[in-house]
Amino acid sequence: MGPGDLAEVLAPIPGASDERILVGRETFDDAGVFFLSDELALVQTVDFFAPIVDDPYTFGQIAAANALSDVYAMGGQPLTALNIVAFPNDKLPLAILTDILRGGLDKVHEAGAHIIGGHTILDEEIKYGLAVTGRAHPKFLLTNAAAKPGDRLVLTKPLGTGILATAIKRGELAPSAQAEVLASMTTLNGGASRAALAVGARCATDVTGFGLLGHASHVARASGVTLRFSVAAIPAFAGAADAWARGVNTGGAERNLEYVNPLVDWGSSTDAQRALLVDPQTSGGLLVAVGPDRVAAYLSRVAGAVEVGTVTERAEFAIVLQ
Amino acid sequence: MGPGDLAEVLAPIPGASDERILVGRETFDDAGVFFLSDELALVQTVDFFAPIVDDPYTFGQIAAANALSDVYAMGGQPLTALNIVAFPNDKLPLAILTDILRGGLDKVHEAGAHIIGGHTILDEEIKYGLAVTGRAHPKFLLTNAAAKPGDRLVLTKPLGTGILATAIKRGELAPSAQAEVLASMTTLNGGASRAALAVGARCATDVTGFGLLGHASHVARASGVTLRFSVAAIPAFAGAADAWARGVNTGGAERNLEYVNPLVDWGSSTDAQRALLVDPQTSGGLLVAVGPDRVAAYLSRVAGAVEVGTVTERAEFAIVLQ
Repeated sequence: MGPGDLAEVLAPIPGASDERILVGRETFDDAGVFFLSDELALVQTVDFFAPIVDDPYTFGQIAAANALSDVYAMGGQPLTALNIVAFPNDKLPLAILTDILRGGLDKVHEAGAHIIGGHTILDEEIKYGLAVTGRAHPKFLLTNAAAKPGDRLVLTKPLGTGILATAIKRGELAPSAQAEVLASMTTLNGGASRAALAVGARCATDVTGFGLLGHASHVARASGVTLRFSVAAIPAFAGAADAWARGVNTGGAERNLEYVNPLVDWGSSTDAQRALLVDPQTSGGLLVAVGPDRVAAYLSRVAGAVEVGTVTERAEFAIVLQ
Repeated sequence: MGPGDLAEVLAPIPGASDERILVGRETFDDAGVFFLSDELALVQTVDFFAPIVDDPYTFGQIAAANALSDVYAMGGQPLTALNIVAFPNDKLPLAILTDILRGGLDKVHEAGAHIIGGHTILDEEIKYGLAVTGRAHPKFLLTNAAAKPGDRLVLTKPLGTGILATAIKRGELAPSAQAEVLASMTTLNGGASRAALAVGARCATDVTGFGLLGHASHVARASGVTLRFSVAAIPAFAGAADAWARGVNTGGAERNLEYVNPLVDWGSSTDAQRALLVDPQTSGGLLVAVGPDRVAAYLSRVAGAVEVGTVTERAEFAIVLQ
């Protein structure tokens, strides 16, 4: 569901008011955080969606990496997960579902966590995902509310998975480009998360359905700052801009653009650049705000990480493209 | 999904092997239990489904009571929950979803827990539920693996919600009977759970999609015992048997019957009785195994609880109807 509709749905519902809720829904952060003791907080998230690739095992891996990412984006270490499954078992062989679950399980194990349950319903269309619980130290979280003026912005994976997943479905993406984007979507954000904590960062978010600018706008709002992106520095998958130019797009991008449009000074960015900046990502990278003296240390620890902008005092726009 | 298909899907997937998993999927218990410390275990479950009643607020309450019940069935105290939502927001007003979420939130608050996140997707059909996390003491759990010969079986809510929900959808249920079944489905199992722990019980399960006999068969298998039910004593909602006799039934009942049939000595039970015993329940009661000297104490603490059978050494059948 788009961020605008979601805000409308939730507006009449009172927010939670318990001091044990360290991160609730108010800041549109990646996961909720609940205080259990001075040294233990639970980091919890749920995510699931319809297949974006044909291979069931790969889809399971991507869905799990995507759900686990929300825990990593808060500085959590995944502990447990529950499978969430919708499957048309009157129409498709059950072996497909076994392969999806095996892909999910392998990623959960790679994260050092365990699947301890789940729920499966009959449905017209396959859907798969996980509810994930991680542990974190209440004093060492990564939230979207902790960006400070002077921080540098680092993005750990290229953009374009939304456009390219559509291109793959249409059979329009070359095998080598396909392999690259699948490898990225099945890569866990655990290393990027641990490196952020190691260099003393306190602000991160993962880039998923609302696109880079949607999630960046939540950082800007929750932190009370402006995020300035160097558009030319932002990494994108080979072929994503071309696919967009050929007419490959997603409904999510349109909703994201509508949502962030009033918050963004678009500068001289091109239509193609904008399309990538609002492209809904699946299992996207982390956007991390790192102190200026630690950014080199972070970049050296995280393969593929790229410096893409800076944080300044809140200005007229939440996001400025340069 | 029916229990047979589910077993087929999961068969090729290796079970978890970590000593911190106190309850995993092997015993088909109501929730997973993960050890965090000598005094703290997490109890985790996920459940969601399509509306079984027309009123959105009531549906939200029922879905939440049903999901929370899995935590109660393990002896847990709910702490946090995540919303799981599918909604056709191109076809229905968003206010319907707000009402569903409000119903869920009110039940979660009644349970003393908090909703700290969620995930919403566009879908053809509404679905709602929760991933719930509770806390329990690792030494004081209620599992389906702890029934002992000599225990008495107590059921805390009447059977028949599956049949009656279908009758309600068809407009065939009188308002007073409707009110009774809705009141039951929106009643939390927290009192029944706390009373079980208070009288020293260690075995419980909640009666949901697999019907009384489906869940009873899991108790029998996990505990290595036979469950003997006094069929005439088992409570059912007024009108459920009549509705069944008029042809009201569910696909779930047929799957459940097929699943438990080889495990049950049906005795002289009637077709109508069997239909209720395999009727898939939503937000059903707890089935608790209580020591014979404590059963009176339990019955006095839990309104509506009824003694329905006994536990014996494992015999030829897992379940015997008397």
